[in-house]
Amino acid sequence: MTSQRISQLVKEMTLKEKAAQLLQLAATFYEDGDGQITGPMESLGIGETEVNYAGSVLGISEPEKIIQIQQAYLAKNRLGIPLLFMADIIHGFKTIFPIPLAMGSSWDLELAERSAEVAAKEAAVSGVHVTFAPMADLVRDPRWGRVMESTGEDPYLNALFARAMVRGFQGENLTCDTDRVAACVKHFAAYGLAEGGRDYNTVDLSERSLREYYLPAYKAALEEGCEMVMTSFNTIDSIPASGNRKLMRDLLRGEWGFDGVLISDWAAIGEMIPHGVAEDEREAALKAIIAGVDIEMMTPTYVHHIPQLVAAGLVDEALIDEAVTRILELKEKLGLFDNPLRGADPEATREIVYCDEHRRIAQELATKSCVLLKNEGLLPLRREQKVAVIGPFAQSGDILGSWSWAGSQETAVQLGTAMQKLAGSDQITLAEGSDIIYVSEQQLQQAEAAAQEADVIVLALGEASAMSGEASSRSDIQLPKAQLELIQVMKRLGKPLAVVLFNGRPLDLHGVIDQADAVLEAWFPGSEGGAAIADLLYGVVNPSGKLTMSFPYAVGQVPVYYNHYNTGRPKPAEDTDEQYVSKYLDIPNAPLLPFGYGLSYTTFEYGSLELSSEKMTSEEAIKVSVEVRNTGEVKGIETVQLYIRDISGEVVRPMKELKDFRKVELAPGEAAQVVFELGEEQLRYYHSDLSFTSDAGKFEVFVGPNSRDTLQAGFHLDK
Amino acid sequence: MTSQRISQLVKEMTLKEKAAQLLQLAATFYEDGDGQITGPMESLGIGETEVNYAGSVLGISEPEKIIQIQQAYLAKNRLGIPLLFMADIIHGFKTIFPIPLAMGSSWDLELAERSAEVAAKEAAVSGVHVTFAPMADLVRDPRWGRVMESTGEDPYLNALFARAMVRGFQGENLTCDTDRVAACVKHFAAYGLAEGGRDYNTVDLSERSLREYYLPAYKAALEEGCEMVMTSFNTIDSIPASGNRKLMRDLLRGEWGFDGVLISDWAAIGEMIPHGVAEDEREAALKAIIAGVDIEMMTPTYVHHIPQLVAAGLVDEALIDEAVTRILELKEKLGLFDNPLRGADPEATREIVYCDEHRRIAQELATKSCVLLKNEGLLPLRREQKVAVIGPFAQSGDILGSWSWAGSQETAVQLGTAMQKLAGSDQITLAEGSDIIYVSEQQLQQAEAAAQEADVIVLALGEASAMSGEASSRSDIQLPKAQLELIQVMKRLGKPLAVVLFNGRPLDLHGVIDQADAVLEAWFPGSEGGAAIADLLYGVVNPSGKLTMSFPYAVGQVPVYYNHYNTGRPKPAEDTDEQYVSKYLDIPNAPLLPFGYGLSYTTFEYGSLELSSEKMTSEEAIKVSVEVRNTGEVKGIETVQLYIRDISGEVVRPMKELKDFRKVELAPGEAAQVVFELGEEQLRYYHSDLSFTSDAGKFEVFVGPNSRDTLQAGFHLDK
Repeated sequence: MTSQRISQLVKEMTLKEKAAQLLQLAATFYEDGDGQITGPMESLGIGETEVNYAGSVLGISEPEKIIQIQQAYLAKNRLGIPLLFMADIIHGFKTIFPIPLAMGSSWDLELAERSAEVAAKEAAVSGVHVTFAPMADLVRDPRWGRVMESTGEDPYLNALFARAMVRGFQGENLTCDTDRVAACVKHFAAYGLAEGGRDYNTVDLSERSLREYYLPAYKAALEEGCEMVMTSFNTIDSIPASGNRKLMRDLLRGEWGFDGVLISDWAAIGEMIPHGVAEDEREAALKAIIAGVDIEMMTPTYVHHIPQLVAAGLVDEALIDEAVTRILELKEKLGLFDNPLRGADPEATREIVYCDEHRRIAQELATKSCVLLKNEGLLPLRREQKVAVIGPFAQSGDILGSWSWAGSQETAVQLGTAMQKLAGSDQITLAEGSDIIYVSEQQLQQAEAAAQEADVIVLALGEASAMSGEASSRSDIQLPKAQLELIQVMKRLGKPLAVVLFNGRPLDLHGVIDQADAVLEAWFPGSEGGAAIADLLYGVVNPSGKLTMSFPYAVGQVPVYYNHYNTGRPKPAEDTDEQYVSKYLDIPNAPLLPFGYGLSYTTFEYGSLELSSEKMTSEEAIKVSVEVRNTGEVKGIETVQLYIRDISGEVVRPMKELKDFRKVELAPGEAAQVVFELGEEQLRYYHSDLSFTSDAGKFEVFVGPNSRDTLQAGFHLDK
Repeated sequence: MTSQRISQLVKEMTLKEKAAQLLQLAATFYEDGDGQITGPMESLGIGETEVNYAGSVLGISEPEKIIQIQQAYLAKNRLGIPLLFMADIIHGFKTIFPIPLAMGSSWDLELAERSAEVAAKEAAVSGVHVTFAPMADLVRDPRWGRVMESTGEDPYLNALFARAMVRGFQGENLTCDTDRVAACVKHFAAYGLAEGGRDYNTVDLSERSLREYYLPAYKAALEEGCEMVMTSFNTIDSIPASGNRKLMRDLLRGEWGFDGVLISDWAAIGEMIPHGVAEDEREAALKAIIAGVDIEMMTPTYVHHIPQLVAAGLVDEALIDEAVTRILELKEKLGLFDNPLRGADPEATREIVYCDEHRRIAQELATKSCVLLKNEGLLPLRREQKVAVIGPFAQSGDILGSWSWAGSQETAVQLGTAMQKLAGSDQITLAEGSDIIYVSEQQLQQAEAAAQEADVIVLALGEASAMSGEASSRSDIQLPKAQLELIQVMKRLGKPLAVVLFNGRPLDLHGVIDQADAVLEAWFPGSEGGAAIADLLYGVVNPSGKLTMSFPYAVGQVPVYYNHYNTGRPKPAEDTDEQYVSKYLDIPNAPLLPFGYGLSYTTFEYGSLELSSEKMTSEEAIKVSVEVRNTGEVKGIETVQLYIRDISGEVVRPMKELKDFRKVELAPGEAAQVVFELGEEQLRYYHSDLSFTSDAGKFEVFVGPNSRDTLQAGFHLDK
């Protein structure tokens, strides 16, 4: 129900003002003050009116600036409509949390929610109103740089994380909770399927696959009350998302009933011209507004053409009013009409931003996000061991990952420092060993010298953070050759060798995992990364992360993901000599490390998988119970995973589908009975007619520590 | 109009006999005579009745056997319905032609048609009635082994080749021309899009892409009168093709009006069980017959379950009658009721099969299929040069390629032999250099010794033929390491180095093309391969082949194909420093070698691109003319290629689309005016509502020697 204030405002606005309200400009247009922005204005082809009446701005993080800009803006705005401040706050604002792909590996929804809450608090007190998060794109291709922004390859888990992030960002009540920000789920839709893993590239898939795998996480975010949606850069059905009426107007707004603000990604409306579905700006504007895009980010097609399109009768002014109303309603919900500065409080930032509590949460999430990939008895390190920490990440602040623009590498806790703090400075020798891409003889000699005196070598290796993220696709997903060479040189010393990996995507780990005695995947762990890793390396905390994206055997295997189909000719075993089965001649079908995989310093044994019944009905769920026992020497957390398989569907069904999981913490020798309830509604899927139902018939249920090593039972759904 | 004979037969057949008529069995069931087939029968779960009444058999190539089997079969068949003999005759029967991917590179439709005619003649006289060809699957992923069976990545060119092959196989009139065979276009549909390039794997795409890229070649084959269609192994819209009602019943039979015989691929109906859309054989049979599949190849679900499905009222017997009628009508069209042996003539095979004329055509097609990829003045060789021919293909019969089962490697003309014959034995030294996968010190030493005495080294390298073809996907598409090492060792000798490649897919040629002075892509050239290559190496024939599938820069770049979309953020140039464009950090966007690429021993210059008008209308086509001049020293054949781009469509349009091509033969200094006519119907494409129309607006037209290096002009379509 639109308030009278807003109805009245819309009535009073001129068409030109309405068009400007739909425009979002970058910080540049406001940060530098009057008269400094002639260049950007010229390049965008807009004038001062558009800047003075643009409805929103993105990318400003300093509260003083935001206050000053808002005040200056309102002074010029005849109707007193405040400016909306948006920003990309993806995994923390100044306190940087692990990248989303790492966060996914924590399988810890509560902590993910806390991280979003912290980010919201830091952003809100700095004056930001909206964050362009969560990114809910399902990902299967590690060549794509933006896999670092996703929680992985599973639609169910992605949906849970999307919900948690929305709750964390938005809180209970955006109007009252001025320490929260509105969330904007992105990138709608299926941006993660960019062909060849090359960013911005073509996406093509069936509508059924779109609905089954790619849409659920966006939908979950909206069900959680997410205020905004951002369009994706890619095509869907050969039409760019930002001009895709079927996707936006029919599905998002019509079928899903989304009545919040839909914003284009950066310049995505104007980019319909190079895409080749608009001859000019006018056609681009027409297609986007008809599709239902409210805010145009950083191209001027709306402000240039909407007045004329309305005048020419090609666009109903009611459509423009709807878009403007949605934006004003969001401003109203955020309380901006009553308090245009909302939470902005430069004074309070000093206490809130990057405070101890926030950093503690960042550290906790980082420890839970790291994944122990291999450990042949080397870890945890003992404090009496002399350790040489070698490699480009031995002492590096480049551990925040992409999309941490408001964070500061200078404040990041570096690995070497943290290890020295924990084990004592004289126990730890540092050497850079190599750069990210290059290695010199001198670096190798220094590394050898450092290693000679140590009991254990810890190699801190990886990708620079700029090697993943937007527009950072790689065709080769191994570590750079320089670092593989460094491993070889270190290996020849014959000493125990651990590798800590910093990276934004699943890597082909040949040359790493086969060489090292232990491998810890640390991703880009954020502000407290070094401290978290040191705790894990020394066993202060027991690793518990589990991969949420498969690590391929080789780049020539992608896409590889756990919830694939069986095909008509499944390979019966990796070492089969059957010829006519679905396989590669040169590598296995399985990834090197499967979805859900991660080790601990203790061991867990799974047993006694039992179903409460072999029959399920629509009314009666079944209980799936399993005993998990800590059979090792130390306390540990295990993420117990439940998968199903629909043996025969109306369409082909995945070999495994994650349906639930439970985290248990067990002392040595302790056992827990983990009981899952599994009901008919969890067996539903999209049929060929796009109905979402279940089929009577046989099902398998799997429980285990990852998607590969599972116990198995069967049941029947009666309908 | 069904003949009375057939209507009567269908009336007289029992339901069990009808079900058996729908069964196709492999050679094993008939070849070994009575009583020898207990094993196969048991494993398929059928009895003598099914064998005696099965409607067709596949994979027999000897005329004596076929005659004997047909006679024995008819002696037991109470209604006198003859057995239909089918076989995979893909690129030749005994006279083996280049693999289809090579044939595509010839751009020679007439010669392709001749090759199919030759294959038909050899097969028909041997008693075969139907060939499972042409394979019309569009391919974009060189990891997939079956790219060797396709003519490449372009829908238009594939359609032309599919038509040519159908004409060649079937001739004018199948009933009269008993020296022809019925064609069966396969694999319907989109089998070439197997995910990850792994054979039999999942296919997922939008219906628009399916129609625009994948369906045209199958449709063209049917428009040319192709008698049969084979289902593909893969899923379409998550439903295996063989049980896909929408694809088969609605689109193929309904929309396209196909009333010929639809056959499953080998075991593809039974494989709906592992696919997971059928709980058992009964459900598989039900789905396939309802979808419209007439013949079940090598699984027994029809014979086991159709009688009961009809009895239970789940399948209308009329549906079975339709399927049986279609099969009997094909038998009638082939004249089998009047002459069950049709063309089978053991005596005549001696004159027809592998005759000089056939081998001459095979050699001509092989010379036209080879593609000169690089030539830094080394080729053609001069007969006075001492040449060391080194490598696993220096003297190998494994040059026929996959799907040449009736051919004989022993009769293949080997490269070394052909070069010795052409240049004289004392000019040519041979050494194996390496095996395909392994290399020994001794091999390398022998190679070095051979090379020491030579003026020029010719390395004959490649994949074993078993490394491409069905179920032969590779994740690594470089030459095997042993051969890359052999190149290195040879390179160090500092002598002129030519490489001749034998392979069934586009390869990543790093380590080859950068090392050699000349590279000739010979594919698997067939029976006369050695002779063809020798002619090309010595300039007896000037190379004229052009690639019809892009050679990727690296496997991490796939899929890469010329007719891609622009994206909203195209890379302005390979060496751009713009950050936010669609690119890889580590390699270019362009393939190493583009579609349409191929060199000659002469050079051609393109100039004076002119359009007859800058406006096209639905009624008035425009003329596109270009001057092509032979600017080199020898006569040569050039394939002049015409592409268009629709600048702005209702959906995104390819950067280039091949619309026409012309072959011109030019003497040194000679020029030709090549004139293409381009009309509105060539600008049509599938819109989002799947209508096939054109849009008024701007178009670009490109003419050139390949898809990369083109002259360009523009026109406008008025409507």
